[in-house]
Amino acid sequence: MYSNGDVFVGEIIGTAILILFGAGVVAGVLLHHSKARASGWIVISFGWGLAVLAGAYTAGPLSGGQLNPAVTFGVAISSGKWSQVPVYLAGQIIGAMLGAVLCWLVYYGQFAANRAEETRQPTLAVFSTVPEIRVWWQNLMTEAIATMGLVLPILAFGLSKGLGETGTGTLIVALLVTGIGLSLGGPTGYAINPARDLGPRIVHSLLPIPFKGTSDWAYAWIPVAGPLIGGALSGLIYNVAFK
Amino acid sequence: MYSNGDVFVGEIIGTAILILFGAGVVAGVLLHHSKARASGWIVISFGWGLAVLAGAYTAGPLSGGQLNPAVTFGVAISSGKWSQVPVYLAGQIIGAMLGAVLCWLVYYGQFAANRAEETRQPTLAVFSTVPEIRVWWQNLMTEAIATMGLVLPILAFGLSKGLGETGTGTLIVALLVTGIGLSLGGPTGYAINPARDLGPRIVHSLLPIPFKGTSDWAYAWIPVAGPLIGGALSGLIYNVAFK
Amino acid sequence: MYSNGDVFVGEIIGTAILILFGAGVVAGVLLHHSKARASGWIVISFGWGLAVLAGAYTAGPLSGGQLNPAVTFGVAISSGKWSQVPVYLAGQIIGAMLGAVLCWLVYYGQFAANRAEETRQPTLAVFSTVPEIRVWWQNLMTEAIATMGLVLPILAFGLSKGLGETGTGTLIVALLVTGIGLSLGGPTGYAINPARDLGPRIVHSLLPIPFKGTSDWAYAWIPVAGPLIGGALSGLIYNVAFK
Amino acid sequence: MYSNGDVFVGEIIGTAILILFGAGVVAGVLLHHSKARASGWIVISFGWGLAVLAGAYTAGPLSGGQLNPAVTFGVAISSGKWSQVPVYLAGQIIGAMLGAVLCWLVYYGQFAANRAEETRQPTLAVFSTVPEIRVWWQNLMTEAIATMGLVLPILAFGLSKGLGETGTGTLIVALLVTGIGLSLGGPTGYAINPARDLGPRIVHSLLPIPFKGTSDWAYAWIPVAGPLIGGALSGLIYNVAFK
Repeated sequence: MYSNGDVFVGEIIGTAILILFGAGVVAGVLLHHSKARASGWIVISFGWGLAVLAGAYTAGPLSGGQLNPAVTFGVAISSGKWSQVPVYLAGQIIGAMLGAVLCWLVYYGQFAANRAEETRQPTLAVFSTVPEIRVWWQNLMTEAIATMGLVLPILAFGLSKGLGETGTGTLIVALLVTGIGLSLGGPTGYAINPARDLGPRIVHSLLPIPFKGTSDWAYAWIPVAGPLIGGALSGLIYNVAFK
Repeated sequence: MYSNGDVFVGEIIGTAILILFGAGVVAGVLLHHSKARASGWIVISFGWGLAVLAGAYTAGPLSGGQLNPAVTFGVAISSGKWSQVPVYLAGQIIGAMLGAVLCWLVYYGQFAANRAEETRQPTLAVFSTVPEIRVWWQNLMTEAIATMGLVLPILAFGLSKGLGETGTGTLIVALLVTGIGLSLGGPTGYAINPARDLGPRIVHSLLPIPFKGTSDWAYAWIPVAGPLIGGALSGLIYNVAFK
Repeated sequence: MYSNGDVFVGEIIGTAILILFGAGVVAGVLLHHSKARASGWIVISFGWGLAVLAGAYTAGPLSGGQLNPAVTFGVAISSGKWSQVPVYLAGQIIGAMLGAVLCWLVYYGQFAANRAEETRQPTLAVFSTVPEIRVWWQNLMTEAIATMGLVLPILAFGLSKGLGETGTGTLIVALLVTGIGLSLGGPTGYAINPARDLGPRIVHSLLPIPFKGTSDWAYAWIPVAGPLIGGALSGLIYNVAFK
Repeated sequence: MYSNGDVFVGEIIGTAILILFGAGVVAGVLLHHSKARASGWIVISFGWGLAVLAGAYTAGPLSGGQLNPAVTFGVAISSGKWSQVPVYLAGQIIGAMLGAVLCWLVYYGQFAANRAEETRQPTLAVFSTVPEIRVWWQNLMTEAIATMGLVLPILAFGLSKGLGETGTGTLIVALLVTGIGLSLGGPTGYAINPARDLGPRIVHSLLPIPFKGTSDWAYAWIPVAGPLIGGALSGLIYNVAFK
């Protein structure tokens, strides 16, 4: 078992890298004056998948690299061990905020250039998810099912036992996340991770980005609740079908 | 050997995930109001490949993750073991139907929006394959050869012995399916799996999707027969060349 | 060591699968009435890389899955073992021709539709390489250097010792071939394999494809000689730097 | 430990392959008369990632395949071993120059065709990085953070201990570099490696390419200093958080 200190530091560093890369790929595709501009959904999906690879391999030796409250929730339900859950959650949300700041620094010039009238655009989508069609129960359902597509495979294959420490386990989870993006990301932009959405949203509301647009707090509960529901259902299905 | 109960449950869950992801990526690319819309063949092919990754790793501990009657057929011919074949097939077809329903729920809003005259379109292609040029013997031949490109490698490399349990075996099969899509999917949309096509077609005919168009039952036998022929030929070639 | 019979059969089957997938992806991207039409260089490059994955894993247990005279040549020079070289070469060229026929069957309808004046096009590029700028010594140099990018890594990492039998070795070679396509395929279309180019060219000259265009025999020696030079140089560099 | 001679030769060969593939993919996408022309950011990012795969697996048995002064710097800080650093650096810069020449040879015809007024273009971007928005401290910050996204995961996961010798370690680093490109390459083109930028820039200034444009020496210090800062910070963070 990992010490509380290692879990805390590991989840901060790992989730920061996850969001640096993940918000980064959206910044690269959406913002003007970026070489990756308009490079499409394949770039977004592989970008987020490899963000998991980078973050989880780094956090692996310290915390196992969960980086996601929905994963932590599913693991706790299936294992019955809840004592370190608060440490994981605290590290994940702090790390997500740190990663959003790092992404802003990497794309500082691109954000600063969001002024000219013809290229000015809302910037929330770099940080947090925005649904294509806004119907709360549909969005919640999409996030819950998509998160089950993440957490149930992780539990079933036993990948949750130290994701970052196995040679190929983390690689497979990274590709799984790529697949979720490709397949299930269309309606809501696939948060599938409460920390991934909430942390950067807080940062977006604080950062001095010109013409940044709304932080859309009315929607903020859905990418938190949906993934937690999906993670919990995954833990329950696992307990029934796989134990 | 897996118990009949585990095989049944494993194939249901695994095939449901396969179709959730696989139909999901087509929904994402084809339907309006999706962030993945019009993102192209690379997204479709990787989407289906990673659908296999997600489904087969999940089903692995319970059933080995065959998820495909053509694979089950080829494995039975090459191994001579037929007793669990009906259990595999039942789980696969039920799972495929369940997965199609889950995909419909994830993209519920997008399907519900299939009304406006200028964006209205047939929806069968999300669920089942539709050939580009409809000539029955050509389509059958394409599906049979493409399925040999799946089942013969699986048998040759011994990947059929518990696909989901090896660290890298399932990953390789997932990439193999990606390659089949990229290379051999052009003419018919590569069912290469009778359950993958038939289960979602049944669901398509039942779901209340506006302006959903035909379920094209006249074509339905080809993506069943073609893959079964390909799977059987693979088993026979394996018995001659590799044993 | 593999028996001569196994090598012969293994190289035929493996190279046939290689060309079925490889020519298939080009057919899918180039021909009309294909779902993969115009899907770009990323599809071509991953298609050929995963063609190696499919063919080499299948041939692995029988022959080690070399599938390429340039690889066979490089391995022979570095190992000093030449006795089975003719068996490898014979299997590779026969397999390449068989694979080209299988690709034609999979895309039979698309080839048959190559009639309408506005969509009619030359078809050689599906089967064999065609340079962008035709200068013989430049094309030869490109093919030789690109092939060194294939064979030297294979030798250096010891991947040649039974490519198809290691869990990840073949996967890495498949990604290496993907990388060669992405990076070095621009000028000539990267044969990097004499059998891959010559076998399908023979088949192209024989098949009854409407308006198929030239088989371009004047160019045919370059994608044979270039890769053999690159394979030989790789063997020599290996003997000097790595032994 | 590797001998000085092996390190020197290994880093030359490995870095040459890295740059041959890496500069090659940019040449393929940017230059006219290339089959990969205008194939986008996904091709660039996977091209550079697989360039690392090719170079590091080849150099692995001789030097561990570091191929990057920022990695060498980070490894030295975290391990406290500095004696072979000069040998690594010398091999890396020589190899990078050699690789740039090889890329020029592969695309000789394409470079030679850079004459016609309507297709003529600057060629530096094939060899070295060019920022989208030129503000020195922003560019430096981007390069430093992006390099931390490379070196900290390598150190954390212990991948630095013989990158090229583990079956999957190098594969994971290759995908990590792909991810950095997708996510963090938008502002500056991600040098994240001083040798990768400086060596080819020297070669660009010397090669007889028609209308090649500036070699932009005013910018040259940033893709050297930024990655070294990022590598050093990674070593320090590693020493605090992971030891």
